[in-house]
Amino acid sequence: MADKPARKRRSDGERSREAILRTAAQLVTVEGIGGLSIGRLAEAVGMSKSGLFAHFGSKEELQLATIEAANALYDEQVVDPALAAPTGIERLNALVDNYMPHVEEHVYPGGCFFASVIPELDTHPGAVRDSALAFMSSWLGHIEKTIRDAQAEGTIDPAEDAEQLLFEIEAAMMLANAMFVVSQEATPLVRARRAITRRLADAAPKAA
Amino acid sequence: MADKPARKRRSDGERSREAILRTAAQLVTVEGIGGLSIGRLAEAVGMSKSGLFAHFGSKEELQLATIEAANALYDEQVVDPALAAPTGIERLNALVDNYMPHVEEHVYPGGCFFASVIPELDTHPGAVRDSALAFMSSWLGHIEKTIRDAQAEGTIDPAEDAEQLLFEIEAAMMLANAMFVVSQEATPLVRARRAITRRLADAAPKAA
Repeated sequence: MADKPARKRRSDGERSREAILRTAAQLVTVEGIGGLSIGRLAEAVGMSKSGLFAHFGSKEELQLATIEAANALYDEQVVDPALAAPTGIERLNALVDNYMPHVEEHVYPGGCFFASVIPELDTHPGAVRDSALAFMSSWLGHIEKTIRDAQAEGTIDPAEDAEQLLFEIEAAMMLANAMFVVSQEATPLVRARRAITRRLADAAPKAA
Repeated sequence: MADKPARKRRSDGERSREAILRTAAQLVTVEGIGGLSIGRLAEAVGMSKSGLFAHFGSKEELQLATIEAANALYDEQVVDPALAAPTGIERLNALVDNYMPHVEEHVYPGGCFFASVIPELDTHPGAVRDSALAFMSSWLGHIEKTIRDAQAEGTIDPAEDAEQLLFEIEAAMMLANAMFVVSQEATPLVRARRAITRRLADAAPKAA
């Protein structure tokens, strides 16, 4: 165990850190981010508290690193592959389509990481809340950008209020996640996709 | 302080119990229901732990009583006045319209009580989770019933899938609450109402 791990140079250290944070993020969706202490995580991963302190230094640093790791995984599974699609409407549909398996395949036991932590953090100002909200803002920004791109490309009516449409799409995805976690049934995910498909059909440019 | 408060007979005791549970419910939307212990609540209301034990007996009993109190307040503010309206479509619109001030007027500092506790409880089987989910099931049942009533009365197209429509209405309300708690701005509440009004207009029976 190094006193000062030079993380950038050590791929073993990087892998270990990544595995620890994956466990931390899974724990958070069940026990809450407020309960994520170095002591609790040490117990969960079977490491000594001093070993984890060498990685993270404080509870807040650990919480922030866990959010960052969840953000990176979300980008990898949901955002980045979607943004590679060639048109705005395809990128928008891919953001929706990639979210559903991210929820359904139990990446986290408590469903979407950010949908799980934001209701806990929303009334607790501080760096941890800011970090989770920065993720949410970035996510909503991606959806809005794809809507505006689709408007510019003529696949969504330019008369549509992009922020209103964003709200309705996000609403369906959030409820799908919440209901899936409770029921463990795919029905709400199907309902969300159906709602969004219908809404985007309504938002298509009207034939002149 | 009585050892065995005969609650049904003593209106002072009832009022005191109600006031304690109101504080408990407010605390829960900030600190989580897992953190609601008799010790923590005693601190918040300035009572002795033994005094609270006389009321509730255990942490779980306190959590269940808090959920019951939040349910009663929700019925009083949102559900009961809405269900008094004469037609299905009016009852449906009133359920939506009564929810918005319930959120916006800070009945709880963390927004809708049940939207706050369910993401915390969803992965924790037990009586407390069951009680919160029973509330949610009853709430969704009220919305679905008003939709089916409106279909029978000819104000919503009988060809509409009532459960799908329920999903879309609830989705808008849930996201409105979540975004209001974070932003403290009315915009998401307005967007939710706009989404629902538009969706109900689409769901109106088609002119033959």
